Amino acid sequence: MTNVYRYKENPIIEPIDVTPLHKNFEVIGAFNAGVTEFNGETILLLRVAERPVSTDPQIVKAPIYDVVNKKMQVIELDKGDAQYNFEDPRTIRRADNLGTFFYLTSLSYIRIARSKDGHHFKIDDQAFLYPFNSYQEYGIEDARCTKIGNTYYVNFSSVSRFGVCDSLISTKDFISYQDEGNIFAPENKDVLIFPEKVNGLYYALHRPSVSNVFNIWLASSPDLRSWGNHKQLISTRADKWDSGRVGGGIVPIKTEAGWLVIYHGATRNNRYCMGAMLLDRFDPSKVIARLENPILEPEASYEEKGFFGGVVFGCGGIVKNDTLRLYYGVADTSMAGCEMSIKEILAQLKEAKLE
Amino acid sequence: MTNVYRYKENPIIEPIDVTPLHKNFEVIGAFNAGVTEFNGETILLLRVAERPVSTDPQIVKAPIYDVVNKKMQVIELDKGDAQYNFEDPRTIRRADNLGTFFYLTSLSYIRIARSKDGHHFKIDDQAFLYPFNSYQEYGIEDARCTKIGNTYYVNFSSVSRFGVCDSLISTKDFISYQDEGNIFAPENKDVLIFPEKVNGLYYALHRPSVSNVFNIWLASSPDLRSWGNHKQLISTRADKWDSGRVGGGIVPIKTEAGWLVIYHGATRNNRYCMGAMLLDRFDPSKVIARLENPILEPEASYEEKGFFGGVVFGCGGIVKNDTLRLYYGVADTSMAGCEMSIKEILAQLKEAKLE
Repeated sequence: MTNVYRYKENPIIEPIDVTPLHKNFEVIGAFNAGVTEFNGETILLLRVAERPVSTDPQIVKAPIYDVVNKKMQVIELDKGDAQYNFEDPRTIRRADNLGTFFYLTSLSYIRIARSKDGHHFKIDDQAFLYPFNSYQEYGIEDARCTKIGNTYYVNFSSVSRFGVCDSLISTKDFISYQDEGNIFAPENKDVLIFPEKVNGLYYALHRPSVSNVFNIWLASSPDLRSWGNHKQLISTRADKWDSGRVGGGIVPIKTEAGWLVIYHGATRNNRYCMGAMLLDRFDPSKVIARLENPILEPEASYEEKGFFGGVVFGCGGIVKNDTLRLYYGVADTSMAGCEMSIKEILAQLKEAKLE
Repeated sequence: MTNVYRYKENPIIEPIDVTPLHKNFEVIGAFNAGVTEFNGETILLLRVAERPVSTDPQIVKAPIYDVVNKKMQVIELDKGDAQYNFEDPRTIRRADNLGTFFYLTSLSYIRIARSKDGHHFKIDDQAFLYPFNSYQEYGIEDARCTKIGNTYYVNFSSVSRFGVCDSLISTKDFISYQDEGNIFAPENKDVLIFPEKVNGLYYALHRPSVSNVFNIWLASSPDLRSWGNHKQLISTRADKWDSGRVGGGIVPIKTEAGWLVIYHGATRNNRYCMGAMLLDRFDPSKVIARLENPILEPEASYEEKGFFGGVVFGCGGIVKNDTLRLYYGVADTSMAGCEMSIKEILAQLKEAKLE
């Protein structure tokens, strides 16, 4: 097992800390934040999920943002409607389970939280990334931030009736940004862009959804906007903690031993943990090692319980010498922080054998 | 309706015309060919489907090519096995219908047919494209060929346990080729690469599969190998001939009026027709017009009946002045040819209004 020091003040950000942007909405999640450092501060690119307040327990509401008319629409559905499946609190599905989902029960966007000490955060009053095209009418989720030169590249899931695709923006100031387009076609999420070129090309991990198969793939790019040479990198492992799905976690960390990748995995029952693998420094398509056990599991009460419990989901971290300060979403509700030793994880990876 | 002149000798190529490459296999399909001209000849990049001969009607065989060991494996399944669904003659699915498919009942690869007159074809003895990596262990399907400069780019579906992705090779002689990688991650097929840059970028249509939604998307590229800026272009239309799925057909044709795209559409009952749309010449993300009715439907007996009947599926054509010589797969079995007037299709598109 990996030694994890969880912050005493966890969760460090909760929904109650965030003022909703929409009238008659409540914030139900402030989680799964991308992470970087900017102007001497730790920046969390928080996923804020807002839900229309519902007074009638028989009615489920689904918010959709009409980007063209800049207007929030709220669809109301009756829980008794046999057309729909309301089992998952996050989504409204077709009763026949065909298709991924019809609607989401909340709309997410990206809002920045800033901290000088990495523990106490102040949350911006406004959104940094709010749905700006029709691929985002159901929201923007799970940002990752990669700094290349003096530019910050932020990628995220764009969710709409067209499915889930992965989109990219670039910014130098976290105020304005440039739209770099949808970089992976649906269904795709959990993209991690490497922080530098390897042998003349940019690399990214991505996670296409092939029916009920959720594995991590690798792609390369000359310009960060266009991606090719798609290869499957790792797959789920039967009967293990990552038997149901795997997907990118935090932006790969360059070490002497290779690229350290912290990824998430889940069982078919949606228990989400974080694990580690090591990729060849000069050829990221070569998996050198993968840990048998997770490095972080839902154990604390704030990880076990919440809107969608039993989830730790890291989208970013800060490396300080040997310490990885991992910030991670808990229970699809709040943000927590923890620290781990990179040397310890690398030593475990050195011990681990590839099956 | 569009006037179609079907070749009198249709089907122009049938499975019986093709000698199987594998011992104890039979050719069950010679269809869905990419098309180009090379050295004064019409070249068809035939999809040849070979199936292990089965003498026991209770046993269904699934061929898988082990690329590493260069060895064909044949898996035998009992039709009584409740784990599987054998309803579709093309695939073996899970009985619970989760996932797309487990196995295919035949293995496809690409073989060249050549003709001096466009009507009479001689088929090469060997494959041009035979599975060369693990993404193709179930086969290579539905090639399209785009000539840019003096290089021919051939893209096709690579089918494996990893899903269906789209791959690219380039060739100058149709003997040797260069692997350009998987250009679209799974699930994706029916990619059409435009024959020239538009405003400094290459363009392609592609068809991601988002659960049970099959729409045509557009992407751009600086180098043909890496693709980004994904946008949905057209979707299926309820209660029409293309209500179930749409996907690219033949390589877009440059006209004064814009890019003429011949695409395929199918109903939920898998009746496949060919239709037409027109894209802005300087911005292919703008759909100028789309025909209400198909330009080609399964009507002839060789289109109505076969391994998978009720299918016309064009992957390529040759333009001679105003004439489009369209070569198309029929009933997932054979190849047919027909001719249409491009002016007539453009006139119909001019009449057509976008809904």
